[in-house]
Amino acid sequence: MGVKLLARAANLEAADLLLVAPQRVVAAGERVAGVRLSVQEVDGYEGRPAQPGRITHLVQPDTGDAPMGQCSTEAGAAALQALATATDLARAGAVDGILFAPLNKHSLRLAGMREEDELRYMQRRFGVEGFTCEFNITGALWTSRVTSHVPVREVADLITGQAVADAVHIIDAALRRAGIARPRIAVSGLNPHAGDGGSIGREEIEVIAPAIERLRKDGLDATGPWSPDTVFIAARRGDFDAVVSMYHDQGQIAMKLMGFERGVTLHGGLPVPVATSASGSAFDIAGRGVAGIEGLQAAFDLCARMARQVNEVSACAT
Amino acid sequence: MGVKLLARAANLEAADLLLVAPQRVVAAGERVAGVRLSVQEVDGYEGRPAQPGRITHLVQPDTGDAPMGQCSTEAGAAALQALATATDLARAGAVDGILFAPLNKHSLRLAGMREEDELRYMQRRFGVEGFTCEFNITGALWTSRVTSHVPVREVADLITGQAVADAVHIIDAALRRAGIARPRIAVSGLNPHAGDGGSIGREEIEVIAPAIERLRKDGLDATGPWSPDTVFIAARRGDFDAVVSMYHDQGQIAMKLMGFERGVTLHGGLPVPVATSASGSAFDIAGRGVAGIEGLQAAFDLCARMARQVNEVSACAT
Repeated sequence: MGVKLLARAANLEAADLLLVAPQRVVAAGERVAGVRLSVQEVDGYEGRPAQPGRITHLVQPDTGDAPMGQCSTEAGAAALQALATATDLARAGAVDGILFAPLNKHSLRLAGMREEDELRYMQRRFGVEGFTCEFNITGALWTSRVTSHVPVREVADLITGQAVADAVHIIDAALRRAGIARPRIAVSGLNPHAGDGGSIGREEIEVIAPAIERLRKDGLDATGPWSPDTVFIAARRGDFDAVVSMYHDQGQIAMKLMGFERGVTLHGGLPVPVATSASGSAFDIAGRGVAGIEGLQAAFDLCARMARQVNEVSACAT
Repeated sequence: MGVKLLARAANLEAADLLLVAPQRVVAAGERVAGVRLSVQEVDGYEGRPAQPGRITHLVQPDTGDAPMGQCSTEAGAAALQALATATDLARAGAVDGILFAPLNKHSLRLAGMREEDELRYMQRRFGVEGFTCEFNITGALWTSRVTSHVPVREVADLITGQAVADAVHIIDAALRRAGIARPRIAVSGLNPHAGDGGSIGREEIEVIAPAIERLRKDGLDATGPWSPDTVFIAARRGDFDAVVSMYHDQGQIAMKLMGFERGVTLHGGLPVPVATSASGSAFDIAGRGVAGIEGLQAAFDLCARMARQVNEVSACAT
């Protein structure tokens, strides 16, 4: 999938590209995609492309032959090593953004990742202590959520003024970096009909509305709390740049119905933009060369746009 | 809106129609819609149409002139009286289904309704003690939910094996009555990724899956618990006839994005089918004759189909 992306000439114009992968992985990708990339192989990288208009390939140690389309320690090790290298390069200022192809969390764990996911892994390597979260992006609509992989039973207690403010601030900052001068951010309520004036829960009145009020005083264009079952209809119409939802499925039910599997996942709160396609590793079609790269292309475009606000080099970890 | 529906010749073929409303309300509807209905006015009704191919109009007492497009005691009284009459006729076996045009709950309360909504009002008048609930229907997809207008904080404790079984049984029975021989019913999980094997909540393992197991032993085609953020994608594709969701927004976020405002609301658990359009009373366009009747027509079609399983007369309460 990464190879198909790198074979597009327009992408080489959009950024200076650094490919971070073992030779064997790139060769396998070329075979599947039926293309041959024009790369300049290097053993180290300090932020200058080896040759203008050509992909610099920072060759990574071989982690062993991995079977296509299934979890493996070898594939996990290759992915983890590429993420580690890309993160280190970003910390050193050698790259301004990181794009990675779909990876499999279980393989990462087989290869030794102790964190719950790749976002936490990169967060630790970046030494970031603050709030981080995953943004889901489809078309021009961004979403983030206040709580994520927690049981519904625990959600209400986790909705605090600080948590709402963190989620809104982090997506506001990322949208500004992506070029939106004053992002319009809709904050969803927690309860049916956003509590219906307090008759179906009081979190809207006691927690969410006051948090929005403070955000507005800080100059953010945050509005709400909106009714969870209509806010995405308004967002789809273009009324907002982002929706901040209160829990996982409040956002994911909507985003998946709106075609998010062709969208972008962006890791928010890290020092550089880190993007990937929203689709998973799609083991059922791996190695068949039929994977669509619409989502990965959108992730590339966004990552390059955000990286350009700083500089001109993006790392591409396959 | 009701008048536009009754002006369509095909609808007069589909069922014997009894119109339950004051003369003034029908005359106002005719003016707005720019049509004149061919009705036979009567003062009482015992189940035989006054004249074949013609609408029988059971004239209701005038409740006073009501302003268009706002809540009022007069409009609420007219609607409540029509619902009461239609319910009594259904109890007496004189009608086999009830269709009503969008009504305003606040007006019903102004006019003296003590129940939380019209479903509970009719339930009391029917003397039904069992489980009732609202189905939302868009296209061929039906949904019901185990919990409805309750705070998210309280949802998890309300998800019991009995509640899940009740919600599945009631929609299964209604779908059979609507002509589906063996309804394919998807039961959603409660938590993100349906609990992901117990790591994000245990209600799926401890409550929902065992309930589905029992339903299957009883011969129902119930499956799940499915991941809440993908079950509607499968349902939209046609994999299921119904989705039973665990809480209000799990179903409503999906249904509203899928165009439910043009869909049908059916009250389940009453002795006869009671249907209406999913759209609200739309005060902003009331009296302008521009209301689409797509949803009301779909509600009429469903109500007539279900009523025909018993007999041939439908009441139409405007």
